[in-house]
Amino acid sequence: MGESPASGADTVAAIGEFGLIRQVTAGRAQPSTTLLGPGDDAAVVAAPDGRVVIATDALVEGVHFRLDWSTPAQVGRKAVAVNLADIAAMGAVPTSVVVALACPPDTPRDVAAEMLDGVATEARRVHVGVVGGDMVSADHIMISVTALGDLGGRPPVTRAGARPGDVVAVCGRLGWAAAGLAVLSRGFRSPVSVVNAQRCPDPPYAAGPSAALAGATAMIDISDGLLADLAHLAEASGVGIDVRSDRLTVAERLVDVGSALGADPMHWVLTGGEDHALAATFGSPSDLPEGWEVVGSVVADTGVTVDGDPYDREPGWRHWM
Amino acid sequence: MGESPASGADTVAAIGEFGLIRQVTAGRAQPSTTLLGPGDDAAVVAAPDGRVVIATDALVEGVHFRLDWSTPAQVGRKAVAVNLADIAAMGAVPTSVVVALACPPDTPRDVAAEMLDGVATEARRVHVGVVGGDMVSADHIMISVTALGDLGGRPPVTRAGARPGDVVAVCGRLGWAAAGLAVLSRGFRSPVSVVNAQRCPDPPYAAGPSAALAGATAMIDISDGLLADLAHLAEASGVGIDVRSDRLTVAERLVDVGSALGADPMHWVLTGGEDHALAATFGSPSDLPEGWEVVGSVVADTGVTVDGDPYDREPGWRHWM
Repeated sequence: MGESPASGADTVAAIGEFGLIRQVTAGRAQPSTTLLGPGDDAAVVAAPDGRVVIATDALVEGVHFRLDWSTPAQVGRKAVAVNLADIAAMGAVPTSVVVALACPPDTPRDVAAEMLDGVATEARRVHVGVVGGDMVSADHIMISVTALGDLGGRPPVTRAGARPGDVVAVCGRLGWAAAGLAVLSRGFRSPVSVVNAQRCPDPPYAAGPSAALAGATAMIDISDGLLADLAHLAEASGVGIDVRSDRLTVAERLVDVGSALGADPMHWVLTGGEDHALAATFGSPSDLPEGWEVVGSVVADTGVTVDGDPYDREPGWRHWM
Repeated sequence: MGESPASGADTVAAIGEFGLIRQVTAGRAQPSTTLLGPGDDAAVVAAPDGRVVIATDALVEGVHFRLDWSTPAQVGRKAVAVNLADIAAMGAVPTSVVVALACPPDTPRDVAAEMLDGVATEARRVHVGVVGGDMVSADHIMISVTALGDLGGRPPVTRAGARPGDVVAVCGRLGWAAAGLAVLSRGFRSPVSVVNAQRCPDPPYAAGPSAALAGATAMIDISDGLLADLAHLAEASGVGIDVRSDRLTVAERLVDVGSALGADPMHWVLTGGEDHALAATFGSPSDLPEGWEVVGSVVADTGVTVDGDPYDREPGWRHWM
């Protein structure tokens, strides 16, 4: 896990649960939404809207991350990012996270501390408080985060509101994390921009609330892949979706990586997960806020097609496989 | 883990993440606080107070539970109970939980389903919604729960408000889970009342808000043991606490088990964790709501004593050991 075997004094077992949590929260400024921070039985967070949005997602070593591919800080950031993206996908502004970190007792103290630092770093980027945590002993590292958000008086944007005639739009990167995974899987470590996209996503958090304000009829976080997640949205809305491949941007960097690896970059764009872009439907192309691009349309049908046809390769990745 | 090796078709891998979450949430009535239940990117929960209380705690197989000692349903219930007790200890009424369940792909489907059923059962007992979840693959079973609660306009009762002259009171059972652990550790399975206390606590959830209403000056959930948790409260408040052993009830059942095992039941009462009783301080004995009993007093000192003396045996149990 670390470069060298952990000596007894530098492990999480030696410093203990309370020490580590204190270390990561001590001296960190909390946003104004944190009314009572960590250290008590529970925290208290402002919920000015009178409703609170809540999402939870966990990352497991060897399944969702590898510490020979990512730094502990990148893993901590990613664990927060995937949850904040879920909050944004409801049209809400994230306010706080809590984190449960499981790791073997002989985990080097620095590994656990850097992971928690990554949690705090990603949270601070968007003025989100790290308001609580739990540390437990386990055979593998697992980091489970729960995020809260505030709707600011807006209705939540669910997956279920898309109507035939709506346009389908995307904000954020597609295919980058999949390209990064392909690079890492072959033992390479560059290009760094692509590899880092796999190590930690850069979700367009603010695009969620702005889409909600602009009247998005449905929205989803793209965690499993564009086609897979649009299929979830289409199913929840009882509609079909047709994606126009000529509207999808394939970044030059992905074209380069595709050439080098003999892979089709459009496949990464259509099916790659873990970028945590947002997809939403709008009544009209003129409704789209800045940063959103039309990539298709909602039709009175079921399922998802690309340029009118079913996509004949495995759409998105599955858990448990 | 189960009685028999899992066949491929009956494992969580076969049914998949979406199938299991759908199974445990389908057809379950949600309380009125659940404004948008599971199935979207995030859930929406009522926070009428304009603040939300949040706590998170995880249980790991082999560390916090054993499936040869507890049923999956008892583990699910316990994972919820320990979190709801934290919410209650702030004086809040729990409203909802989310759960992240990690298990090996070959986990029998019934084990995971029963664990999630246990989650739903404990939640339903107190009108709490199970509003979201995540399932991930891991080498061991781990269940991580986050709970939310509402303060109903009251200030949160922290650990930090105890003042010299206050009385210290407890509501709920003490020592039962520790006695149950002693029984199970020796290979016995009875008395069932004691063993079940270890398998799943029965925290006095309603006693938290009622203590807050009655003006409790500080409060804590007893998860690590009476003396250990009173030490946390005393430290946070900058006071000392003296416990009067003659005010502590040692149930006849614990006396019997102590005799049978050659153990001192008072030690279980003073130091046993996992019962999730509540301890609180009040300005006067006459402030105590029903169900609360005075067990000591707050003094202008530091640390915790029993009948005026330091307690000379290990106070409470530690993680990571």
